[in-house]
Amino acid sequence: MAIVIIRQDGKIEAWKKALKERNPSIAVYSYLEDHPKQDITMALIWKHPQGSLSVYPNLKCIASSGAGVDYIFEDASAPTDIPITRVVDPYLASDMSEHVLAVILAELKNFNSYKLQQVASDWKPKIYRRIKDVTVGIMGLGELGALTATDLMKFGFTVQGWSRSQKELKNVKTFAGSDTLDAFLQATEILVCLLPLTPDTEGILSKELFERLPKGAYVINVARGGHLVDRDLLEALDADHLSGACLDVYHQEPLPKDHPFWQHPKIFMTPHYASVSDTDSVVPQILENYDRLRMGKELLNKVNRKKGY
Amino acid sequence: MAIVIIRQDGKIEAWKKALKERNPSIAVYSYLEDHPKQDITMALIWKHPQGSLSVYPNLKCIASSGAGVDYIFEDASAPTDIPITRVVDPYLASDMSEHVLAVILAELKNFNSYKLQQVASDWKPKIYRRIKDVTVGIMGLGELGALTATDLMKFGFTVQGWSRSQKELKNVKTFAGSDTLDAFLQATEILVCLLPLTPDTEGILSKELFERLPKGAYVINVARGGHLVDRDLLEALDADHLSGACLDVYHQEPLPKDHPFWQHPKIFMTPHYASVSDTDSVVPQILENYDRLRMGKELLNKVNRKKGY
Repeated sequence: MAIVIIRQDGKIEAWKKALKERNPSIAVYSYLEDHPKQDITMALIWKHPQGSLSVYPNLKCIASSGAGVDYIFEDASAPTDIPITRVVDPYLASDMSEHVLAVILAELKNFNSYKLQQVASDWKPKIYRRIKDVTVGIMGLGELGALTATDLMKFGFTVQGWSRSQKELKNVKTFAGSDTLDAFLQATEILVCLLPLTPDTEGILSKELFERLPKGAYVINVARGGHLVDRDLLEALDADHLSGACLDVYHQEPLPKDHPFWQHPKIFMTPHYASVSDTDSVVPQILENYDRLRMGKELLNKVNRKKGY
Repeated sequence: MAIVIIRQDGKIEAWKKALKERNPSIAVYSYLEDHPKQDITMALIWKHPQGSLSVYPNLKCIASSGAGVDYIFEDASAPTDIPITRVVDPYLASDMSEHVLAVILAELKNFNSYKLQQVASDWKPKIYRRIKDVTVGIMGLGELGALTATDLMKFGFTVQGWSRSQKELKNVKTFAGSDTLDAFLQATEILVCLLPLTPDTEGILSKELFERLPKGAYVINVARGGHLVDRDLLEALDADHLSGACLDVYHQEPLPKDHPFWQHPKIFMTPHYASVSDTDSVVPQILENYDRLRMGKELLNKVNRKKGY
């Protein structure tokens, strides 16, 4: 039994160290070093190179180090007959909720405009909006979406939520399924996308959806770049139908330097860092599942392959 | 009996209209039009031209249209033997609280850096901070400071407050007087200045104060430009003692285009618009005092000339 860590962001040693600190007897390898492939039973991965999962004959579990798993389904060579687990990091949801609150407040108080004005040495006060006057619509009511909705409601926003299947949240009006999307969008002034990326949700942030939002709506995408049709967003902004957008995720990351998002005055960009997994809170979950794997027990936080999350 | 409106921000007609709507029989003049000076009993003012208050022989009350009154004491020709009133606008305090929350969250989530990076087409994730890990110190616990402190505490920040005389706020550690300033500053990671501008507080945001803050502290001035020694702030930022600052107020407004604040990468500027008086909520208070003036009753929200607020 052994774990292999596969990721391309330079963080393999940090994860190895974090696992070893909690359980020094565990066998952990980087996929880049020489390692006994037949011993590997768990692959702890994040955006692995395609094909890198197919070399382990005794692999029993693919453990995503983050909440998202969509990148695993994009690799046609990844084994399909073993469970995938994902991480439920307590801070992932609260970090996302804080990020979304920060983005919404920055928009209500015109910070993106003010920063651009500052760069141009331009003094131009602009009417601000108040929390109590704004309706936020959250698409996707999983752990991240549900906490974000509940927190925003506690902070004084009017909040409504939309998801595939009906969810109940206290003091948040919830909508479910495509039949209700129109009603949800019509009343949404600030739209937050926190959907999982599946074939059903790919490209959902499109011209068709933007047209159903009220004029002046603001769009926040903190889910995946694949949810957004980039060209449609640019058109809706340039036609003054949307007032602005804040993006944390992109089709390609880092975003290529010639992409029009960088210099668009109505777009505020953050570099896919709204909420990142913290080894301190994630490692115990990985070790728990590694133990369960050894003892043949049911794994925690298993992904439903049909739903895709 | 009549009211004269004196201000230089192009809003005289809006105020006149708002007063007339609530009480059509009232006599209201702009100081710029021909008007019977001996009839004027109340001057409704905001940053009046110096000398403009001394031409009314029967003036009985100087009513500031905002919460601040420091600009009145700067005018040596303003009458000193009649009461000054100020406005207690319910939204002034909550707007300020929202603005300060927005500024703090933008700083925790590195939005100022990200916007500058975006302008330069630069992708560079930066560790964010969490609400629960941050101690905010509020200087000045009047209406605005007290509400801001209480709100930030409710949102999950650790909050402490400092004021001239002892104030009690639930779940907020309070300090009073200059003897306690050291202890207050040592534990403050984000400092918010909401003090009134008086001879005692002028230039309080100085090299001496910054040195007593922990390394990496962030400074927010939403009070008056006169609280800050501009040069000392620039030095503390450039020495990397302070991590950044957000300013809404300046010694001269609009800030002259050649001032170094505009292009400083660690400064985020807003154009004195954190919280602005709303005619809807202010006009009833003005009319109430105008009535009290007529009936010889005690005025509401009178300024203590000795304290300066």
